[in-house]
Amino acid sequence: MDVTPDFLRSLAAEAAKETLPRFRRPHDVANKLEGGFDPVTEADREAERAIRRLIKADFPDHGILGEEFGPENLPNRHCWVIDPIDGTRAFISGLPLWGTLVGLLEHGKAIAGMMSQPFTGELFYATGGKALYEGPGGPRNLRVRATTDLRHATLCTTTPSLFLDDARTSYDQLEMAVQLARYGTDCYAYCMLAAGQVDIVVETGLQAYDIVALIPIIEAAGGMITSREGGPAESGGFVVAAATPQLHAAALDVLNG
Amino acid sequence: MDVTPDFLRSLAAEAAKETLPRFRRPHDVANKLEGGFDPVTEADREAERAIRRLIKADFPDHGILGEEFGPENLPNRHCWVIDPIDGTRAFISGLPLWGTLVGLLEHGKAIAGMMSQPFTGELFYATGGKALYEGPGGPRNLRVRATTDLRHATLCTTTPSLFLDDARTSYDQLEMAVQLARYGTDCYAYCMLAAGQVDIVVETGLQAYDIVALIPIIEAAGGMITSREGGPAESGGFVVAAATPQLHAAALDVLNG
Repeated sequence: MDVTPDFLRSLAAEAAKETLPRFRRPHDVANKLEGGFDPVTEADREAERAIRRLIKADFPDHGILGEEFGPENLPNRHCWVIDPIDGTRAFISGLPLWGTLVGLLEHGKAIAGMMSQPFTGELFYATGGKALYEGPGGPRNLRVRATTDLRHATLCTTTPSLFLDDARTSYDQLEMAVQLARYGTDCYAYCMLAAGQVDIVVETGLQAYDIVALIPIIEAAGGMITSREGGPAESGGFVVAAATPQLHAAALDVLNG
Repeated sequence: MDVTPDFLRSLAAEAAKETLPRFRRPHDVANKLEGGFDPVTEADREAERAIRRLIKADFPDHGILGEEFGPENLPNRHCWVIDPIDGTRAFISGLPLWGTLVGLLEHGKAIAGMMSQPFTGELFYATGGKALYEGPGGPRNLRVRATTDLRHATLCTTTPSLFLDDARTSYDQLEMAVQLARYGTDCYAYCMLAAGQVDIVVETGLQAYDIVALIPIIEAAGGMITSREGGPAESGGFVVAAATPQLHAAALDVLNG
């Protein structure tokens, strides 16, 4: 199964036509969940429509799973997994840390993926076992850094308040063990891990569409990403990504007490 | 006292020559405080040198207060206040939410200021009572939005862990009263407030150089920024910025119990 950089670039470009003009402009925010604040913008829906259109044109027999419009053509050996705007809260706050995520599963394993941030003009992607960056500063290979000790590590999470009860205690212990913690990072954190800028990303409550696109980027950049139990991360839930196997093991040790 | 947009642009451009090439590259991180993690990069020092050089050339009789090299020519009717990289933790984590801050005090009151984010190519500035944006999407006036009710407000802070003891209790109450909270925002949050993207920014432990540049931007965009006690914010400390006087009063009510 060959996914070309050009195809991923075209997904990013078509999605950007729907997201970017609506970023930092007045826009409607709908509540997905009664009583909760889970914004879905028009940008979300139109970007997913655009991505599905391109996938269906090039891969008409593939399955599609998206945040906005549900599953199509499943089960399937190949399944595309779409989050048109990961980080909608960042998006509606004007912060350029959201991204368009598209990943490809083959027999349930993530084999290709992209994160596009059109305001900064950045594309992080992986296909064929290679992880690459295109954007300001020019194209380059993505490569994790060699951090093995929690005491030297930078940790990212979207917000500690997503960890509840025991999970919060475990998260707080990990935060105390590292050198630096950053919040509010959404999908951007995983790309900074792949780029060698941060060392650990821990999040909970993820859906498949929040993470599938990012798994190949982290793995092809030399990093490791699993569930809290050390299994595959493709289903989402509680996910732990780290720059090196040693750091990953150390993070799991703390998180699992 | 006239500060031209061109002068502010030149400060941003000269600082960017020092910061941008060092962003996302391997670089030395020094510890300012024994035992603490307070990174100062070469970029910080070189950018402040460049900014001081331009100020001295155009305003040789003015005072200068900077994060890196201390006060010069003080006390003085006019004093420039510099933070070459606000958000050094974001900077070393590869996140584009840091900024170069330069503000001007006249008799202790902030009258002009700029925040430059060179990776995104954004400049937020105020002079002569006008607040403006230059960057992707083209130049425009900055204007706060009209939120008056905490229940509809988006709140930003760098991290809740900076609020200690009673201040943490007060902060948590404010967070519970608003619709949405975002972390990890540093100087970027104040600019998003001025741009009408978020509604409240609360931070504590600020130095003058963290805030002076941002005060004129918020005020000229129609917002309000004070200390927790409702006094001037120019000295830093515990600072509360809000989109409207009503929202500002409501936030102070919650924060002061």
